[in-house]
Amino acid sequence: MQDLFQLICAQEMLAHCATFAPLAEEHVPLGVARGRVLSRDVHSPAALPPFARSIMDGFAVRACDIAGCSDSEPALLQLCGEIMMGESGSSRSLSLAAGQCLRIWTGGKVPRGADAVVMQEDTKLHSPDTLAVFRPVTPGSNIIHAGEDYSQDSLVLSKGHQLRPQDLGLLAGFGIREVAVHQRPKVAILSTGDELVPVEQTPSGGQVRDINSTILAALVEEVGGMAQFLGICKDNLAALQHRCYQALDRADMILLSGGSSMGHRDLTRRVFSSLPDSELLVHGVSARPGKPAILAKRGNQALLGLPGHAASAMVVFYLIARPLLRRMLGLAAQHGLTPLEVVAARQIPSPIGREDYVRVRLLPAKHGGPPRAEPIHAKPGLLNSLVRANGLLPIARDSQGLEAGENAWALLFPHIPHIS
Amino acid sequence: MQDLFQLICAQEMLAHCATFAPLAEEHVPLGVARGRVLSRDVHSPAALPPFARSIMDGFAVRACDIAGCSDSEPALLQLCGEIMMGESGSSRSLSLAAGQCLRIWTGGKVPRGADAVVMQEDTKLHSPDTLAVFRPVTPGSNIIHAGEDYSQDSLVLSKGHQLRPQDLGLLAGFGIREVAVHQRPKVAILSTGDELVPVEQTPSGGQVRDINSTILAALVEEVGGMAQFLGICKDNLAALQHRCYQALDRADMILLSGGSSMGHRDLTRRVFSSLPDSELLVHGVSARPGKPAILAKRGNQALLGLPGHAASAMVVFYLIARPLLRRMLGLAAQHGLTPLEVVAARQIPSPIGREDYVRVRLLPAKHGGPPRAEPIHAKPGLLNSLVRANGLLPIARDSQGLEAGENAWALLFPHIPHIS
Repeated sequence: MQDLFQLICAQEMLAHCATFAPLAEEHVPLGVARGRVLSRDVHSPAALPPFARSIMDGFAVRACDIAGCSDSEPALLQLCGEIMMGESGSSRSLSLAAGQCLRIWTGGKVPRGADAVVMQEDTKLHSPDTLAVFRPVTPGSNIIHAGEDYSQDSLVLSKGHQLRPQDLGLLAGFGIREVAVHQRPKVAILSTGDELVPVEQTPSGGQVRDINSTILAALVEEVGGMAQFLGICKDNLAALQHRCYQALDRADMILLSGGSSMGHRDLTRRVFSSLPDSELLVHGVSARPGKPAILAKRGNQALLGLPGHAASAMVVFYLIARPLLRRMLGLAAQHGLTPLEVVAARQIPSPIGREDYVRVRLLPAKHGGPPRAEPIHAKPGLLNSLVRANGLLPIARDSQGLEAGENAWALLFPHIPHIS
Repeated sequence: MQDLFQLICAQEMLAHCATFAPLAEEHVPLGVARGRVLSRDVHSPAALPPFARSIMDGFAVRACDIAGCSDSEPALLQLCGEIMMGESGSSRSLSLAAGQCLRIWTGGKVPRGADAVVMQEDTKLHSPDTLAVFRPVTPGSNIIHAGEDYSQDSLVLSKGHQLRPQDLGLLAGFGIREVAVHQRPKVAILSTGDELVPVEQTPSGGQVRDINSTILAALVEEVGGMAQFLGICKDNLAALQHRCYQALDRADMILLSGGSSMGHRDLTRRVFSSLPDSELLVHGVSARPGKPAILAKRGNQALLGLPGHAASAMVVFYLIARPLLRRMLGLAAQHGLTPLEVVAARQIPSPIGREDYVRVRLLPAKHGGPPRAEPIHAKPGLLNSLVRANGLLPIARDSQGLEAGENAWALLFPHIPHIS
């Protein structure tokens, strides 16, 4: 029978993903900003540190007072007191005159008149108010100058940067308690199929439990979106239209996974096409799995139809939904999976003319080379191929596959916990 | 001055981390189980799929009825109806006799009597109740047999496995709605230092804002723990003892970061030692940064003292706190950072006798090799070294460092969002 699809390759699909815009800006407290993406540049509101600080436990000195000192000829300085932590050297009118020093701790404010700190280890207390210094220092030694970390009004973090713990620490250091980021995409998840029953129900006859909703919700949250489960819908045009129409009120993306049969595919296309102001961007991707993928756009909302088989749905999610969600979050429209160099554990054939995303299991390296990637060839409906896999091995459309021992790049499934 | 520390190397530190036990078991719904670690094996409560299913749109047949058919000599079968999705083939007493077939969709239940499915593409409807089949199939073709994915009572996921989206989908497929996992560690975070003020306060004189609490809380949540911020404490033994004692009521770990001065270090050790039933495991690690790290144990609770400098505290977190938290979650006591092969962008010297964890920034590869790692040498108190870095480059204690162009392995900071 005739193939009605206009197949495009995964690369072209990414170009379509890039036509979506990052979501609107919102301001969130630092405590929940990890992983979020800046919607604008951040400039330093002040110099950091705001004053010169010691980076050692030791003594604040004038470098010229101890020039030339040594173990045999120590410089003797008058010890005038101590800079307490958190104390302003200037507030107590503490300042150094020639020949004087002050005890100072790591992070303490360098007093007026001092231009260096000598390490405690290079000194000895001669008397309660006389310090012997055995090693000279150059001006600026063991000091962080005011603004040395960041000067005022400098660009510290750029729009599009994904916030890590240290970035949040930097913002905290400036007293910035809320940060402008792109909103997290809200993703409505809908499973279609007359054979599906909810997880909590015992299937009877030819029924099976809905697996895709659980997988897709976890995949959405893994990349930073918020999943809203709309439930199961029968393969019925009017019912699907109604559910999708409702979901568009509040969702940035609809993920509709259904049976991958001819009839189902056409149903998804008809549902997406029938929604007001929607535009069908993609109908079929020349990747395996991925052929039945459908992408439509309505304003900046994405409508994505995924295959019904869980394993296929997951691969298509990584190829299309993940780049789209990353784009909406403010990142590049790419899957963002970590590539790892591997060696084919055995031959992995692939037909020319179609990209192949082979599920692979990683095995320990032999003789110190890269890890070996064992292809998991399974019938489409088997979940254990996904559970046993550590990632995907893409094979280009103009390649006939890999010989055993050939090097390639695998894309690792994210494995770091993202607990909500 | 004398070094009172018993320095151990980072590898020995991991052995101490492994003396802690994974936390107690709890049962959580699938919707919040991503990233959690199984506290016991999971066996399949039933066969999956529970019945033979078609993996194609096509027709259920008896393979022997179409043996030898071809384009020129198609087999003609009597089309007796259609297996509706979700319908039990047996409930309508649908079963195939010799010479018969039934229309079936992807995922449909294979009816009694049929042993294969022919693809729609290899057939043509001759009349409303006569199907021509042009290609023979072997028994079992295009069918997933009952239990082919997982047979009943088989081990499907092992204790210690960290749950990914596809694993959750598998559990959903079995109707398992709650899963037994190790509890998430509760981590009390305390910053000490007379110079510290909360983020929301404007520092005066020699004061600075508390940066470490924000960074450590985000690091804790990144690996799957739950951060509880106890606030700032003055450098006062009694006050610190009281705060730690209170925290031990509900926390699995205390992270105490303080000034890295001699005095502070000793204060942390005295606080930890003074807590009832506590045992000091480690006082100092021969790594840079890391020297002032202190680890104590009280039952299965961990008390960890970190340096006051944010950059040092973060590195020590990755070296010690992260392995400990992963261990408590039920994973291996390892940092779990992704290694990446890199080339030193320039010379990176390192003293013998101490492990070095050099912060590095990754630059694009030259001539197609691995990415280049540029060392960020900065004074200890500068936060921008962390913000500019993409990871750590460990240099072994018996190495004098790397020459420019030498290959090495960097540990990447986690960069995938973990939004809570």
